[in-house]
Amino acid sequence: MEKLYEGKAKLVYKTDKDDEIIIRYKDDATAGNGEKKATIQGKGALNLAITTRIFEMLEENGVHTHYIETLNDTDMRAKKVEIFPLEVIIRNISAGSFAKRYGVEEGIVFKEPTFELSYKNDDLGDPLMNEDHAVALGLVTRDQYDEIKKTTLKINDLLKDFFHGIGVTLVDFKIEFGKDKDGNILLADEISPDTCRLWDEKTKEKLDKDIFRRDLGNLTEGYQKVLDRIRG
Amino acid sequence: MEKLYEGKAKLVYKTDKDDEIIIRYKDDATAGNGEKKATIQGKGALNLAITTRIFEMLEENGVHTHYIETLNDTDMRAKKVEIFPLEVIIRNISAGSFAKRYGVEEGIVFKEPTFELSYKNDDLGDPLMNEDHAVALGLVTRDQYDEIKKTTLKINDLLKDFFHGIGVTLVDFKIEFGKDKDGNILLADEISPDTCRLWDEKTKEKLDKDIFRRDLGNLTEGYQKVLDRIRG
Repeated sequence: MEKLYEGKAKLVYKTDKDDEIIIRYKDDATAGNGEKKATIQGKGALNLAITTRIFEMLEENGVHTHYIETLNDTDMRAKKVEIFPLEVIIRNISAGSFAKRYGVEEGIVFKEPTFELSYKNDDLGDPLMNEDHAVALGLVTRDQYDEIKKTTLKINDLLKDFFHGIGVTLVDFKIEFGKDKDGNILLADEISPDTCRLWDEKTKEKLDKDIFRRDLGNLTEGYQKVLDRIRG
Repeated sequence: MEKLYEGKAKLVYKTDKDDEIIIRYKDDATAGNGEKKATIQGKGALNLAITTRIFEMLEENGVHTHYIETLNDTDMRAKKVEIFPLEVIIRNISAGSFAKRYGVEEGIVFKEPTFELSYKNDDLGDPLMNEDHAVALGLVTRDQYDEIKKTTLKINDLLKDFFHGIGVTLVDFKIEFGKDKDGNILLADEISPDTCRLWDEKTKEKLDKDIFRRDLGNLTEGYQKVLDRIRG
């Protein structure tokens, strides 16, 4: 297969259809904008299996995604989109960069979800931005921003319920959107323990990439717990 | 007079009225969150004279401010307010921290003004935040945010016209708001070449604190030009 792009956690390949791609989930883990790196066998397959279930659930609930089908342990067939260079973040509870940036403890439960954008740019360290910045820099139009925000809040509601159903608290998550050749905005990238903070509701055990970021133990064991619970 | 507070560029004193204060404009200049410091004789008086004219103009146009009267070269009598710990910023043209943060050149004229908030907290380096962050951290209510944003956009329109009238481009500015004991939101702090970026429309000469930040020459000469033009 012809490689179109290699990111930190995924490879993208060309297919024989112009408007479709294959996304391969890698076992590579990075943190701190690439400062910390490791290869963790089985991570890619776990993320793909979890993402698959979540994208299917979102599609069933009317969220348009790039997902077409999962081909094997590591490969997903997806619609080709032009990714907006924005990390779209929802925080339900304070943690991570939010807590550090504003000097507050982790674990503050917000009355309303907070919606946040970062400019996807490794050289600049993915800086925080707001709606006006994104529009001024031509990264999105005002209408696209409104649609992305509305869809993201809907996704948050669906994901919170989904994870609560398996005894897991959705602390925060990062998603990406793209537009297809007709201008439709689709949820792209992945939704997995690499891109969500997930805490066990009872034990508060971390079941997400913070296991790697903070050296808290075996990452695949945490991810496997999430997948096992999703599978019932 | 009894000192209530000392900031980087101003001192605040108690008066015999509970709801009034005296603000003394200092000659101290700082940049880079206090990393660069100097005392520049006459700066305080120039900033107070310019702020006075601007606050009078804004009041005439229906903007509620903390300004009562200017007492002498360095002292202003003002209404006592509780300052929101937010730096409220409008950018009409890219410059300074915006250009650096997003890796773009200075001088991009935006189609619409960009509205921006920073958390006023020296220890944290005044981090950027968005509306949801400010509300989640309890710094403002949603209604207060809406009023502050609306008032700030009105102030931008008035200031752009005011400076255009004296041949100066308003690139960006930082303001602060406070609430009085009845909950009224008032424009507070100052509006001066310390807190605005001002470029001569024809020569593009900088007439603001960037003269100090970037060692571009004599700061008070630049500020004096602004004041002379305001006085006609």
